[in-house]
Amino acid sequence: MSLDEIIGEIEKELNGYDFGKEPKELYDPIYYILSLGGKRLRPALCSMAYGLYHDDVSPSLKPATAIEVFHNFSLVHDDIMDKAPLRRGQETVHMKWNENIGILSGDVMLVKVYEILLSVGDQYLREIIELFNKCAVEVCEGQQLDMNFENRDDVSEEEYIEMIRLKTAVLLGFSLEMGAKIAGASQGDCENIREFGQNLGIAFQLQDDILDVYGDKEKFGKQVGGDIIANKKTLLLIEAKQLATGDLKIQLEELLAKEDFDAEEKVEQITSIYNELNIRGRAELLMETYYKKAIGNLNMVSVSDERKGGILQFGKFLMEREH
Amino acid sequence: MSLDEIIGEIEKELNGYDFGKEPKELYDPIYYILSLGGKRLRPALCSMAYGLYHDDVSPSLKPATAIEVFHNFSLVHDDIMDKAPLRRGQETVHMKWNENIGILSGDVMLVKVYEILLSVGDQYLREIIELFNKCAVEVCEGQQLDMNFENRDDVSEEEYIEMIRLKTAVLLGFSLEMGAKIAGASQGDCENIREFGQNLGIAFQLQDDILDVYGDKEKFGKQVGGDIIANKKTLLLIEAKQLATGDLKIQLEELLAKEDFDAEEKVEQITSIYNELNIRGRAELLMETYYKKAIGNLNMVSVSDERKGGILQFGKFLMEREH
Repeated sequence: MSLDEIIGEIEKELNGYDFGKEPKELYDPIYYILSLGGKRLRPALCSMAYGLYHDDVSPSLKPATAIEVFHNFSLVHDDIMDKAPLRRGQETVHMKWNENIGILSGDVMLVKVYEILLSVGDQYLREIIELFNKCAVEVCEGQQLDMNFENRDDVSEEEYIEMIRLKTAVLLGFSLEMGAKIAGASQGDCENIREFGQNLGIAFQLQDDILDVYGDKEKFGKQVGGDIIANKKTLLLIEAKQLATGDLKIQLEELLAKEDFDAEEKVEQITSIYNELNIRGRAELLMETYYKKAIGNLNMVSVSDERKGGILQFGKFLMEREH
Repeated sequence: MSLDEIIGEIEKELNGYDFGKEPKELYDPIYYILSLGGKRLRPALCSMAYGLYHDDVSPSLKPATAIEVFHNFSLVHDDIMDKAPLRRGQETVHMKWNENIGILSGDVMLVKVYEILLSVGDQYLREIIELFNKCAVEVCEGQQLDMNFENRDDVSEEEYIEMIRLKTAVLLGFSLEMGAKIAGASQGDCENIREFGQNLGIAFQLQDDILDVYGDKEKFGKQVGGDIIANKKTLLLIEAKQLATGDLKIQLEELLAKEDFDAEEKVEQITSIYNELNIRGRAELLMETYYKKAIGNLNMVSVSDERKGGILQFGKFLMEREH
């Protein structure tokens, strides 16, 4: 199956799943958030990892959808915590309904993840649930660290990388590892493919940080500089704060402290500080480092290069995206 | 093991469990909410059901604690939704920390439930997770219905009973069924013990509704009439609204509509309407009906009356409680 076919099949699984009906305030938000789209990147990775070992990936499609449900659960709860009005250009669940409904329908989604995970065979069930539990807890830890960082001025690059590893990358790692595991892969292969996913995930998030500032507005699909406007502690800002000295440091701190500002002007001025410090180059270097680590992990997986072609290309595609 | 010994062992399991440490904003609330006490009624029921089949209930203690963690997860999220400032006389998690921490540490608790459930043997794992998923979803449905009822004026007795079945009783049913299941009980026994739990749970909640109005203030441990002050749609209010006619109906509706009122006076006046309509007698009759149904279910369980003594006594104790 091609990537597009895999994604098509996953859409079918998601659309066909009966999450429940009544009370509708509880279930409508689940169908709503899942209907907003998204690249279905994570479940696709699961099925591609399965495809390293078997030509027919169909046994992986149902478990793979559990990952998409979990991802959307985390979006619903995170959007409440972040007070986000929009998700993929549409109203967030807590705005369209209310916060209580967002909390509760999110809770049901998390239970539904386990319901869908029960589609894996008995021989893998315990291990898959163990792996998923670890992943789910780490995603929550990452979200908590992200919130903690908002109130801290001394976040280091290492701490930031650990936060995005937990919040974003471990789920990519789990997606791939589950696919390999239920395909019957060896323990070693499972670990290498998970590490591939985690390092790819870190590179992916760093790419996101870069695109927020340097992305093409049309292609990026959201406001360029959104992170800058919100003083979000991305890798770029963390690096800039560490590197800026003298006047540049004062200028940066003043821009960050200003409560009344013209958004476009702030984005322009901070971007120019980033440019002066070559923050983009540094961030891209770090991104490439993690991408290369990921490729190294994939190389260790004991299947033929030919079979790895699809995943490799997918990784490359993710790194070259402009949105 | 006596009931007190079982509860003591469950406390030990809960206190000894390593939920996690860092970030502490995520984990401290879990230790906090579990430290506030509670009767540990649900896990105790699980171990007592196990005890119907085996003298040594120790294999049931760990899985039983999962139920208490789930119960406390639901309290943390419900308290946010209900904007409750206090839980067991202490600050609720979202008041002591904040709502975001309440949402997120609750999410982690739900994952930890599954982590602890993995302590059951392979032969029961799939079925236990299936049963728990169903129970967890129903508890969420019950909470949603409860919130929906706040904005409705035409809630029927049947709807109310279904709501408390979902919100409260199915968890008691699951607790008992899990205990029987992992003890190796037959499908028939498992169903009867679950029905026993659900009917006992409904009777238990009706008892709660009655105690809120007619309980002894000292023994009840919380303000008598709290439900009346908040216009909470308990069985008593639902019945009173259906039965009141003429002047009594007008009086009741006026009391419910008043936004400025003396709390003690309102409790007194509504209680006197309840008394005139014999609401207490009707509620007690319904409670006894469910209690008798429960006893009928327990009678169907194919173990000796001698072994059932402990559970029977526990049920009786719950029904005779004054707080």
